[in-house]
Amino acid sequence: MRIVTLLTDFGTADGYVGEMKGILLSQAPGVSVVDVTHEIAAQDVDGGRLALARYWRRFPPGTVHVAIVDPGVGTSRPALAVESDGRFLVGPDNGVLSPALLAPGARVVELPVPPHASPTFHGRDVFAPAAAALVGGAPIDALGAPFDAPVVRRTPEARRLADGTIAGEVIAVDRFGNAITNLLLRGPAVVVAAGRTLTLCRSYADVEPGAPAALVGSNGLLEIAVRDGSAAERLGLRRGTPVTVRTTR
Amino acid sequence: MRIVTLLTDFGTADGYVGEMKGILLSQAPGVSVVDVTHEIAAQDVDGGRLALARYWRRFPPGTVHVAIVDPGVGTSRPALAVESDGRFLVGPDNGVLSPALLAPGARVVELPVPPHASPTFHGRDVFAPAAAALVGGAPIDALGAPFDAPVVRRTPEARRLADGTIAGEVIAVDRFGNAITNLLLRGPAVVVAAGRTLTLCRSYADVEPGAPAALVGSNGLLEIAVRDGSAAERLGLRRGTPVTVRTTR
Amino acid sequence: MRIVTLLTDFGTADGYVGEMKGILLSQAPGVSVVDVTHEIAAQDVDGGRLALARYWRRFPPGTVHVAIVDPGVGTSRPALAVESDGRFLVGPDNGVLSPALLAPGARVVELPVPPHASPTFHGRDVFAPAAAALVGGAPIDALGAPFDAPVVRRTPEARRLADGTIAGEVIAVDRFGNAITNLLLRGPAVVVAAGRTLTLCRSYADVEPGAPAALVGSNGLLEIAVRDGSAAERLGLRRGTPVTVRTTR
Repeated sequence: MRIVTLLTDFGTADGYVGEMKGILLSQAPGVSVVDVTHEIAAQDVDGGRLALARYWRRFPPGTVHVAIVDPGVGTSRPALAVESDGRFLVGPDNGVLSPALLAPGARVVELPVPPHASPTFHGRDVFAPAAAALVGGAPIDALGAPFDAPVVRRTPEARRLADGTIAGEVIAVDRFGNAITNLLLRGPAVVVAAGRTLTLCRSYADVEPGAPAALVGSNGLLEIAVRDGSAAERLGLRRGTPVTVRTTR
Repeated sequence: MRIVTLLTDFGTADGYVGEMKGILLSQAPGVSVVDVTHEIAAQDVDGGRLALARYWRRFPPGTVHVAIVDPGVGTSRPALAVESDGRFLVGPDNGVLSPALLAPGARVVELPVPPHASPTFHGRDVFAPAAAALVGGAPIDALGAPFDAPVVRRTPEARRLADGTIAGEVIAVDRFGNAITNLLLRGPAVVVAAGRTLTLCRSYADVEPGAPAALVGSNGLLEIAVRDGSAAERLGLRRGTPVTVRTTR
Repeated sequence: MRIVTLLTDFGTADGYVGEMKGILLSQAPGVSVVDVTHEIAAQDVDGGRLALARYWRRFPPGTVHVAIVDPGVGTSRPALAVESDGRFLVGPDNGVLSPALLAPGARVVELPVPPHASPTFHGRDVFAPAAAALVGGAPIDALGAPFDAPVVRRTPEARRLADGTIAGEVIAVDRFGNAITNLLLRGPAVVVAAGRTLTLCRSYADVEPGAPAALVGSNGLLEIAVRDGSAAERLGLRRGTPVTVRTTR
């Protein structure tokens, strides 16, 4: 089974994703095209990067992940293909592919942009054909020349303050309004966000409906939730909002 | 052909659905993963239940339906697998699976929650692995112990009043603003909703643009529509709004 | 590999698309069902037509495209199947299939509507079964009688004015707020929209962030964009907004 997954900020209604799927199924007959999402907020490279971080390694080795959030399409920003931990990825050189680039042993090549390519739609004219070639078994070296210094974007790191408090921040807000932070929790702690000290608990339902709570999310990071509600709305949390943790023993 | 369908309230942009698809395709190589929807309103168990009622039997026998709208994830609410009318279903024990539970001969087991499972994401750590096992041919009894009293949620039933009027209500509003009721129509009748007597017709276009109408919807239930418009907006209809029917002969 | 693609304005949350997928996978076992979109604006036939124009020929010959935006469902409007340039299409006779109807050699048949068909859901009861039959190899003539005069909707044509200016208009606004026009560009020109003369450039990023620009889009038509923003919002562009081009040599 050969799999190509798609992550874009294209939405679906305009037919752009349809064009890409047509290319993939024409150039790689029999491939399984798997939608991850087309609803990344327009041009939100970090949103794409954080989503990709969740799933890229969960797919079988050999999977090709297409990840396109590409405000710089048509500029001189390179187009990349990456081989990392047995998976392949294609996308623009703007950091969206960082989760795979940061894995040990990642190899990167620069995809040539053919003269006929539309300067507004590399998804169709550069990335889909490259994905079709990779899923068809082409070695990554056949697709382009090695590329040395891809753009890497990292989640901002939490800092330890003089008094032992760890100062972090919200890095994403999910569909339920849960605010995901860059904080790891090690044992009992006091969590403060938006001026409130939050109860630390194990699952969303350990507090009363409407009450905020802090808990370890499914990717291991501390997140802030409101039972049966949106923590982001209730507490005014957004990307970048400071959150602190102080270990209590 | 082995099929797993997905219904969730996760949206797609956060990558949670991507994680589940990765698990399914890794643990059940070659499976067809079919999106039904990830746009159930957040935590709307009844919305999920009513959508599931429409499609679960339309898929071939052997299909595994994943249906996750799960406000109680991480609490003691059980995780279920169901075998019903030749199909399999997995989801939380909160009524979302009711359409299949209510079919004669349904069998239910409780899925164990492994110690490593995230208390916020059973979709990835409990339900996707169970779906992969079922679609791979595992008998349902191999997945868990029989479970006796699953939560069943039912559409509220219409009542016959003393004067012969049937008193029902709106149970769902669809994307077009059509208001679907819990009423069955048997012959000519007078339909009243939001203080208006509605023309009974056969299709949306049997009335003037902008005019409200009552008709039998595609699942056999009476629905209220406005031609080229939203009945819900125009008439102020929402889940629970009373609708009455009086048979005219 | 047998492929059926889906374009609708149904959204996914109500389960209608789930019903159609169940029918397809039951009646055409092993088929690949490919979502193009279910997010066409409700009843926006032209939106569906323009999206279809982008992708229908990009899929392999033999593909069956289902395209349903159908305000007239249940009326006497015919239901069609089309064979065009080696692909098949099914949908209502309201112009949504025009891109395929306009290709030379297109053949059209009228699909019978069976007595049991719901007058509100031909997608499930007429079009999905027809698509399953076509992808299963049924000749189009086996599905219905030849149909002579299908409704064709065309993008409005730009007009040449007495002074040589070409007067066109916006025909679509995409998710990014780019306004796509009905204008073709031949050489250097002055583009005017919403009272502003626009810089002509090659890609979105050739102007300053926030600045409007005109460029050739990925389907060859002139489009108006704002770097890192929405041209439609910034300039007040919508379908029908006039745009003019005057060639400068």
